[in-house]
Amino acid sequence: MRSEDNTGFGNSSNNSGRFFDRRTGGANVHKKGVSLLNRYSWYHTMLGMPRGKFLSLLLLIYVSVNLVFAGIYYLIGVEHLAGIERSHNLKEFSEVFFFSTQTFTTVGYGRISPTGFLTSAISTFEAFIGLLSFAIATGLFYGRFSRPQAFLKFSDTALVAPYKDGSALMFRMTPFKNNLLSEAEVKLTLAMRVEENGKIVNKFFTLPVEIDKLNSFSLSWTIVHPLNEKSPLAGFTEEDFGNTDLELMVFVKAFDEIFSNTVVARWSYITKEFVWGARFNPMFYAGTDRQSTFLDISLLNSYSPATIPAASNTL
Amino acid sequence: MRSEDNTGFGNSSNNSGRFFDRRTGGANVHKKGVSLLNRYSWYHTMLGMPRGKFLSLLLLIYVSVNLVFAGIYYLIGVEHLAGIERSHNLKEFSEVFFFSTQTFTTVGYGRISPTGFLTSAISTFEAFIGLLSFAIATGLFYGRFSRPQAFLKFSDTALVAPYKDGSALMFRMTPFKNNLLSEAEVKLTLAMRVEENGKIVNKFFTLPVEIDKLNSFSLSWTIVHPLNEKSPLAGFTEEDFGNTDLELMVFVKAFDEIFSNTVVARWSYITKEFVWGARFNPMFYAGTDRQSTFLDISLLNSYSPATIPAASNTL
Amino acid sequence: MRSEDNTGFGNSSNNSGRFFDRRTGGANVHKKGVSLLNRYSWYHTMLGMPRGKFLSLLLLIYVSVNLVFAGIYYLIGVEHLAGIERSHNLKEFSEVFFFSTQTFTTVGYGRISPTGFLTSAISTFEAFIGLLSFAIATGLFYGRFSRPQAFLKFSDTALVAPYKDGSALMFRMTPFKNNLLSEAEVKLTLAMRVEENGKIVNKFFTLPVEIDKLNSFSLSWTIVHPLNEKSPLAGFTEEDFGNTDLELMVFVKAFDEIFSNTVVARWSYITKEFVWGARFNPMFYAGTDRQSTFLDISLLNSYSPATIPAASNTL
Amino acid sequence: MRSEDNTGFGNSSNNSGRFFDRRTGGANVHKKGVSLLNRYSWYHTMLGMPRGKFLSLLLLIYVSVNLVFAGIYYLIGVEHLAGIERSHNLKEFSEVFFFSTQTFTTVGYGRISPTGFLTSAISTFEAFIGLLSFAIATGLFYGRFSRPQAFLKFSDTALVAPYKDGSALMFRMTPFKNNLLSEAEVKLTLAMRVEENGKIVNKFFTLPVEIDKLNSFSLSWTIVHPLNEKSPLAGFTEEDFGNTDLELMVFVKAFDEIFSNTVVARWSYITKEFVWGARFNPMFYAGTDRQSTFLDISLLNSYSPATIPAASNTL
Repeated sequence: MRSEDNTGFGNSSNNSGRFFDRRTGGANVHKKGVSLLNRYSWYHTMLGMPRGKFLSLLLLIYVSVNLVFAGIYYLIGVEHLAGIERSHNLKEFSEVFFFSTQTFTTVGYGRISPTGFLTSAISTFEAFIGLLSFAIATGLFYGRFSRPQAFLKFSDTALVAPYKDGSALMFRMTPFKNNLLSEAEVKLTLAMRVEENGKIVNKFFTLPVEIDKLNSFSLSWTIVHPLNEKSPLAGFTEEDFGNTDLELMVFVKAFDEIFSNTVVARWSYITKEFVWGARFNPMFYAGTDRQSTFLDISLLNSYSPATIPAASNTL
Repeated sequence: MRSEDNTGFGNSSNNSGRFFDRRTGGANVHKKGVSLLNRYSWYHTMLGMPRGKFLSLLLLIYVSVNLVFAGIYYLIGVEHLAGIERSHNLKEFSEVFFFSTQTFTTVGYGRISPTGFLTSAISTFEAFIGLLSFAIATGLFYGRFSRPQAFLKFSDTALVAPYKDGSALMFRMTPFKNNLLSEAEVKLTLAMRVEENGKIVNKFFTLPVEIDKLNSFSLSWTIVHPLNEKSPLAGFTEEDFGNTDLELMVFVKAFDEIFSNTVVARWSYITKEFVWGARFNPMFYAGTDRQSTFLDISLLNSYSPATIPAASNTL
Repeated sequence: MRSEDNTGFGNSSNNSGRFFDRRTGGANVHKKGVSLLNRYSWYHTMLGMPRGKFLSLLLLIYVSVNLVFAGIYYLIGVEHLAGIERSHNLKEFSEVFFFSTQTFTTVGYGRISPTGFLTSAISTFEAFIGLLSFAIATGLFYGRFSRPQAFLKFSDTALVAPYKDGSALMFRMTPFKNNLLSEAEVKLTLAMRVEENGKIVNKFFTLPVEIDKLNSFSLSWTIVHPLNEKSPLAGFTEEDFGNTDLELMVFVKAFDEIFSNTVVARWSYITKEFVWGARFNPMFYAGTDRQSTFLDISLLNSYSPATIPAASNTL
Repeated sequence: MRSEDNTGFGNSSNNSGRFFDRRTGGANVHKKGVSLLNRYSWYHTMLGMPRGKFLSLLLLIYVSVNLVFAGIYYLIGVEHLAGIERSHNLKEFSEVFFFSTQTFTTVGYGRISPTGFLTSAISTFEAFIGLLSFAIATGLFYGRFSRPQAFLKFSDTALVAPYKDGSALMFRMTPFKNNLLSEAEVKLTLAMRVEENGKIVNKFFTLPVEIDKLNSFSLSWTIVHPLNEKSPLAGFTEEDFGNTDLELMVFVKAFDEIFSNTVVARWSYITKEFVWGARFNPMFYAGTDRQSTFLDISLLNSYSPATIPAASNTL
């Protein structure tokens, strides 16, 4: 079984954790030696951020920018703002702050309005900044929700299940939203940590699968890698599975018919996420009217014990 | 004739309705076991919604959000809004509501304006929410009209028509808008419900077609699947067509030169949508000046009876 | 020489004009039998419209919508608008019109402001419509300028030029803007009107070209179709070229590195746009500092007479 | 070794500078013979502009447009603006200018408001222009930050390093941001200036590389072109490398999983950027917890001297 060189993972990177980080959906790599500003694409960051965090960040920026502008107006002098009631400092500052937000958002009620040159000039600038900020926010919102995503759920575990006369490694996945995927493809790469000449090295293998393309991907899809002579895992016993550092990396690519764009998804299974001797329970069934199919996504991780034929271990 | 395994439809899903839903353009599958919020991609939903429904929804949201804000201002107290005329409750509430809309849309006439801290703070927040809402609306509008669509019309029925010495299954399609499609491809999958070992199972076949690619797709395109020895429908009589549960699924992919993007379209024909012994009438003809071609889309479903040669049934 | 069936043009469409319309960049087809509203994709139309026409249309819509709203406010009664000076009708209407535009654009100076319920409600609705209109305009602007275009110029004529021992059909094209094209491909289809069994039919041929792909497309590119035994035009004399109804259709596809998208361009040459016995003059040359290349786009159509060897006519 | 014709660079363009311009990322070509307006795609220009320059340009346009409108209002007469304090010219003009910005940004405080027909009409037009300008700005911001970019850094130099029994030309590259690249491909083209029949001509070669595709591109990637019999540089000594006009052009293409789009990057190395007898130092290593990999981007250009085996020069 020849190992692969083009996985993009270093075969001596000596990593004993995961190569793939399920949480970020990316490689488990930390970058150094580049300034913070250059290390992050702020747009990629804003797109990947959870919704709540994103909205809070926008609100925080909104308040902060207005505090800064309010400070500037306050320093220039409250007397250059027509309509403000003179009173104690805090109340005056809050009035200035609200004038600032009314300028930034271009509400401009006009109860308070700028009179002096400097205050007018700054409010002119603030309204400009305000509009540009909302232009950027518009772009970010659009970027976030138009970002093509696969909306796939993967089973938590991969099973070693009986298959034909022997056994096969299986996991499954399903689209869980009202998206339409077609021309789906899957690619499996197995990383195995082995001792070679007294040194621990990573080996990578592309695993063949029974059906690696689907015309239309709307039900669940069970990926089957037969554990036969074409597999680097051929002859592995339950103990072998438990004692070897493995990582099964999954790459799925499909065409989303609503986005009209290619979408991808990644996932991975490590040693402790393999289950020996089990079989997935069906996830879909015909409705009582026999006119349509039901897909129960809560059954994604449902499996039953199954006996692996001994033959599969004695190739 | 070998059946296919990679259609993505379960071969024992026992579905006796359509696999493909002409109305939604997707698979006829109902998802369960996932919460409502997770089951729908709200963006996919907003993109797929009919125009009238979409605009009404926006208006509904606009009025609702303003009712909520108006309620808050009203509870805080009308006296914190300068310029409001004190009168009976309903009139005051309507004034507050209009103040709210003037804030939300950032019109801000200023006849009514916030004075107290709380009212000012909330109007500051409302203007922010208003702008973000319109940022989202901007994204949705753009997403809706820039969404690459094929704008293809398919004939309502598929015909069994005389073809060469035998017969062929034919249907046709045409682009009906001022879009420019090139490099069009078509793929046909036939689902057939057959009895196998006393059990009803679904079999899937990819059907070969005479011309499955077009460089430029601007006229009508008749898809021809010859009913010869390469077809799983070879030797089918008119009765066979009527008595077998069939579904012909069509997948079209093309490059739209104005969107500069790939567009796809799907369609399907079930048993009752097949017509035995008919031939499509031409849809296009030269203009009287013989300088350009006319394409009459109203003729898409126009066909004439035609005799299927007996030979085609006796392969 | 076998003719092609997959061009998408009808081989008996009896069209004696162009198949390709240089002006619209699309097929020379008129659609009928579908309502005006369904025949046009308004988004495709807005994207394809010249800039001046597009901006005028926006302005026209802006004025019209405001005239309508002004009419409504006027009918409800000027007395429901605070701040309006009572005077003669026309002046009052113009004041109402400006109030409407101040609402639609959300400027909302507030000198004039709504007071009654009905007027307030309508201005609430108008501000909403105004913001949505600008949301749509934002999308259209973005759609227009982000629309991937190839920015290619083609030579006005195609030449029959000496080439190796014989002759070849040549035309050239060049990118004329600061766009970066890579992985460019060209495909030539020749339409020829011939008599077959006493009937005029269209035949289509894919023409082989010497270099049909370029890694990087930044200079001029001369497309060369040798007139040898592989060409349907083999042995054509100057008279043959003049007497045959020909249309050479060009399809170019490339990857634009700034748009990060595929761009396409089409062009065509008909009988009267072929020039016998000519050769293109070079368009690019080294600068005097020999450090960079100059590309003179005004020379695109520059050619010199050249003698076609008689041999090329006697295959 | 056959040279290539499909590079898109003229083989007699006599250019003795770079073909590729590292700064612009495009070909080193100057276009002439086309008007300035047609030569530049303003959108491509705005997208490629550095951030600071882009923002300054927007501010400049904002101020200029408002100066123009202020001039118009001033010429019509200050008396048509309600709320302006009559004073000396400069102060009046500045008040008019601020009225203009309040209209353009749709802030519309209303302290100053238009009264006459002409002034009102122009402010109506200005608010329209203002909103369209911000619509365009929104599109530009989105176009800028959503523009798919590869975010790759290339090593400054290419090394001639020992490789297997001989030597190889090597350079490396690494993604430096939090982007996720998959299915990366690299293509190398070598331009060599040679004397042929007493004339200097450019020859182009596609160079084979050991690994030209990566499934996942998240660490550094060293591109290796072995200097063996398949290379046009076979047998080149250190002197040959120094005395020949070479340019190694690199083209990288990958799929960015966050943009869900293809991204490309280009780079080139000329004669003086080749280093004979050196080897790159590793850039990545396991963390102390051995759970993840660290990639130190500051080491991208770090290499150590290495002896090239003489054998590699005597093929």
